[in-house]
Amino acid sequence: MTCELCNTEGGAPIWRNEECRVVGIEEPGYPGFCRVIWNAHAAEMTDLAEAERARLMRVVFTVEAALRELLQPDKINLASLGNVVPHLHWHVIPRFRDDPHFPSPIWATPARAPAPAGGTRPDIALALAARLSRL
Amino acid sequence: MTCELCNTEGGAPIWRNEECRVVGIEEPGYPGFCRVIWNAHAAEMTDLAEAERARLMRVVFTVEAALRELLQPDKINLASLGNVVPHLHWHVIPRFRDDPHFPSPIWATPARAPAPAGGTRPDIALALAARLSRL
Repeated sequence: MTCELCNTEGGAPIWRNEECRVVGIEEPGYPGFCRVIWNAHAAEMTDLAEAERARLMRVVFTVEAALRELLQPDKINLASLGNVVPHLHWHVIPRFRDDPHFPSPIWATPARAPAPAGGTRPDIALALAARLSRL
Repeated sequence: MTCELCNTEGGAPIWRNEECRVVGIEEPGYPGFCRVIWNAHAAEMTDLAEAERARLMRVVFTVEAALRELLQPDKINLASLGNVVPHLHWHVIPRFRDDPHFPSPIWATPARAPAPAGGTRPDIALALAARLSRL
């Protein structure tokens, strides 16, 4: 049994503490797409203690707030799925009316081709790290 | 501007308090699919106060825990998307290896036809309501 999120960072490092980390995801058409990954191997939120869940969600919501302020998306999508990699990770996805799938979820059939922008711009990553460091 | 989740229950009523409600969703192949809906109109988790977010997530995680115990799914999927209906609601979806989309998200192209089971069985709804009432 090898777990991708136990063995790799899972994206471009933005911030980490002892419990979790925030990484940027390179997905064409989705600038600012981040994942918040629990460092230890656990499959479900309810595998964590209540206080751990609360701290993880606090990081997720801090990322959401920062991305809203920095990118002013039309919507934020949050999801913890993990059917393929059952190691707790939250997708935090800024959505825009002209993004490849809007208004469908990003896992649906695309409605249009991605704009060239993608990945987490260095200025966004730095701004996120600064906000998370104040937690 | 009419909002579907301001004007309708949004599913089969299971439980509600002053802030939020839990409803069962009729989706072929997805027994136990629930949504946790914030009663007031708000688009994003970070539009709520911190204490409100925490209480909403406590309901989401209580539903998750109950569905795990009742249905023993292979995975739980949690998502707050709202691109079409930007009124805060959490999908809580028990996933099974033989469900229509596994291991893809339920919004992807189906991999197989749904089994006849769907909707929230009355016994599941009752068991959920009992657990939520103890919150």
